[in-house]
Formats: sequence, C-alpha cells, structure tokens
Amino acid sequence: MERGELPPDVVVRRLPLYARSLRYLLQEGVHSVSSQELGERINVTAAQIRKDLSYFGEFGKQGIGYDVERLLQQIEEILGLTQDWPVALIGVGQLGQAVARYDGFRTKGIHIVALFDSDPARVGQEIADVVVQSIDQIPTTIRERSIRMAIVAVPALAAQEVTNTLVDAGVRAILNYAPIVVQVPEGVWVRYIDPVTVLHSMTYYLAREHDTDPALPPND
Amino acid sequence: MERGELPPDVVVRRLPLYARSLRYLLQEGVHSVSSQELGERINVTAAQIRKDLSYFGEFGKQGIGYDVERLLQQIEEILGLTQDWPVALIGVGQLGQAVARYDGFRTKGIHIVALFDSDPARVGQEIADVVVQSIDQIPTTIRERSIRMAIVAVPALAAQEVTNTLVDAGVRAILNYAPIVVQVPEGVWVRYIDPVTVLHSMTYYLAREHDTDPALPPND
Repeated sequence: MERGELPPDVVVRRLPLYARSLRYLLQEGVHSVSSQELGERINVTAAQIRKDLSYFGEFGKQGIGYDVERLLQQIEEILGLTQDWPVALIGVGQLGQAVARYDGFRTKGIHIVALFDSDPARVGQEIADVVVQSIDQIPTTIRERSIRMAIVAVPALAAQEVTNTLVDAGVRAILNYAPIVVQVPEGVWVRYIDPVTVLHSMTYYLAREHDTDPALPPND
Repeated sequence: MERGELPPDVVVRRLPLYARSLRYLLQEGVHSVSSQELGERINVTAAQIRKDLSYFGEFGKQGIGYDVERLLQQIEEILGLTQDWPVALIGVGQLGQAVARYDGFRTKGIHIVALFDSDPARVGQEIADVVVQSIDQIPTTIRERSIRMAIVAVPALAAQEVTNTLVDAGVRAILNYAPIVVQVPEGVWVRYIDPVTVLHSMTYYLAREHDTDPALPPND
C-alpha cells in the first residue's frame, strides 16, 4: 500500500465496528487487546485489522497490542466523532419511534435532536426528550440547528419528497429506512436499511445450498 | 465474463433492489422497462444491470426492454422467493414489533411465522396475527415448522446466546439487529443492521468534505 493512499469505503465502514467492539471491551474492564482478539470479535483477521488501521497512521506496538481506550479515541477522531453531529429523524411511526429511542444513539458524536412527522396527531408528542415537529418545520429547524445528517423513516411514497426538502435545507448525509432508492444531487450521501432486501439476498444462498457448486457468501 | 461464472455477492445483493423496483413499476401499471429506466431507479447504469443479469441467463430483447412482470418473476425465482420461507423473529421490544408489523414482509417468499421474547409480560400477546412465545419454545417451534431464517432483535448482551439456540435448532441465515457481531459455525450466514455504525461511517466523509483531497464514498 502506498503511503497516504485513501482508504477504500469498505475500510471506512469497518471502523465503526472496531469502535463498537472497543467500547464493549472498555465496559468489560479490558484495557489492552491484541489485533487477533479484536479481530475475533468482528470476524476479521488480525492482518486485516492491521492493514485497515495502517491507512490512518501508526497504532499500537508490535507484540504489545493496542491500548483499548487510546485506540477507541483515535478511531473516533478518524470518524469525526469527536465533533457533535446533530441528526434529524423524519417519520415517527413505530419504526421511527424505535430508532428515536435506540440506546445506540447515546454514544459519542451522533445525537437525534429533531423529530418530524406529517401526522398532526403525533406533532407535539415527546419522544426520548425531543418534541415532534410538523414536517413544515424541516427547513427552518435544519438551518437553525445546522443539521447535516438525517434519518428518513417515512413510507416509500413520501421518501423522495422528504429527501428533497432535507437536501434543499442543507442535509448532506441520509440514512434511509424507506424501501425505495431516492435521487440526490452529487455531494449528498445516502445509505439504506431495508430488512426485506437483506433477507431476499440470503434466500438466494439458502435455496442453493444443496447445489453441487454452492456460492458461499461472506459473513460481514 | 465466463459462461457459468458464479455471481459475486455484490450482484446477489442488488437483485432484491431490482425486484423491489419492478414491484413498484407493476403497482404503477408499467409493463415494459428499459435497462436505463430501471437503472435510474436504483442508481446503477444500464450496462451494470445487463451485466448483473447476464450471470443468470438471457433476459429481455435488445432494443425492446424488459417485460416487467416476467423479469420480476425470473428474479424472484433466482432469489428462491417462489418458495415459502418461514421466518422467526426473536425480541419483540419496540424495534422487534416494528419489524413484525413491517408491510415489506407481506411480499413474496418471506413470512414471519413465529415470535419469541424472554419477557413473560410479552409472551401470549398477539402481534400482526402471530402469538408471542417464550424463548424456551425456540428449539421446538423452529424444528416443527422447519424454520431456517431468523431475525434477531434482542439486546446486545443476549444476542450470542439466542444465536446459539437458533443455530442448534437448524437456523441457517440470521439477520441481526443487535449491535454486536455474533460467532456462528461455517455454513450459517449472518447479516447485520445497525444504524449507528452506518451513521458513524458517514461522519467520516462529512468531517472531511472540506479537505483538498476528499474521498467520496459511493452511494449504494
């Protein structure tokens, strides 16, 4: 690998998994970890961890392992999580409410600070200490609070319009739970979570596992 | 590409997106679609679609486009969705309930037929026409109903034990919402959904977007 080479996206996507495992280790009172032990927790090899981290500098010492707290702090810095990222969540139906209340968002960096819904019956309700606003308030609130990240948990039919409103207001990164691919201008990043498409790709392998020439998918 | 070459996992993962778009097209009353139009709906090029499909045979005719219903049926066959896949869901807290009630599971192939929870207060409740059972019932029910796919929506601390029970009972594919990587024997596939790790990989790019040499991530 060349020095200063940009890390591939697949490496960037693994960093939050390393960080998550390091947080568990800290909770368990573990202060030092080898790349092998860390690797076992996320099903990658020790060599892969060392290669992944080498994109970002020098970490740990040969034969001594990593200082858990320090490596976590370094990865959080790389991920930009030492900054505060206010996040808007649009759609507080059952899924949106589950997301709003999700403990995982109590970690560093990400904070859901604004909730929106189109249903007047939900506007004004308080979920996880945040008051639900009308979707008409999206542009004003996004701008006032300098929100650049959003989670979309609205029905598929509403997702494109909500996305347009968010992008117009300055949102640059969207996590989309709506089961539809949305169009965004360049410089806006969208990632998707749809359990159905994930399960539908797994049936492909299950349906074939008795074939003579099975194609085993990677566990990621 | 060689004839008969196995499709890479990334191609298998795109097939459910094609199928989802084709279902929307059918709902909209569209019966014929070009690879370009289909590609625009999921942000891939027409050439990519043709290449992806070429792993599985001949589809459509040059210059005529695809018959929406027929292509959908063919992709569902490839994905194994013409079979019925009974699915167990473990953990019916707020997230699990949202998943159990998710309309997306009303499509072909996947059906959540069994719900389990460790909380006695939830056992016996009915969610989306399925009665919640005690987790002690997992082995019996999984075997009786020949369930090979499961969704895990329990807290991180419980995920490995639940996974072990599922695997012992014969489950081969697991969609894991718990924010932890679980260990499984070879021949069992696990995929993960964790919004926090997704958002944490997006902050990496947002934190760098004013760098002179930005690494733009792909929109997937």
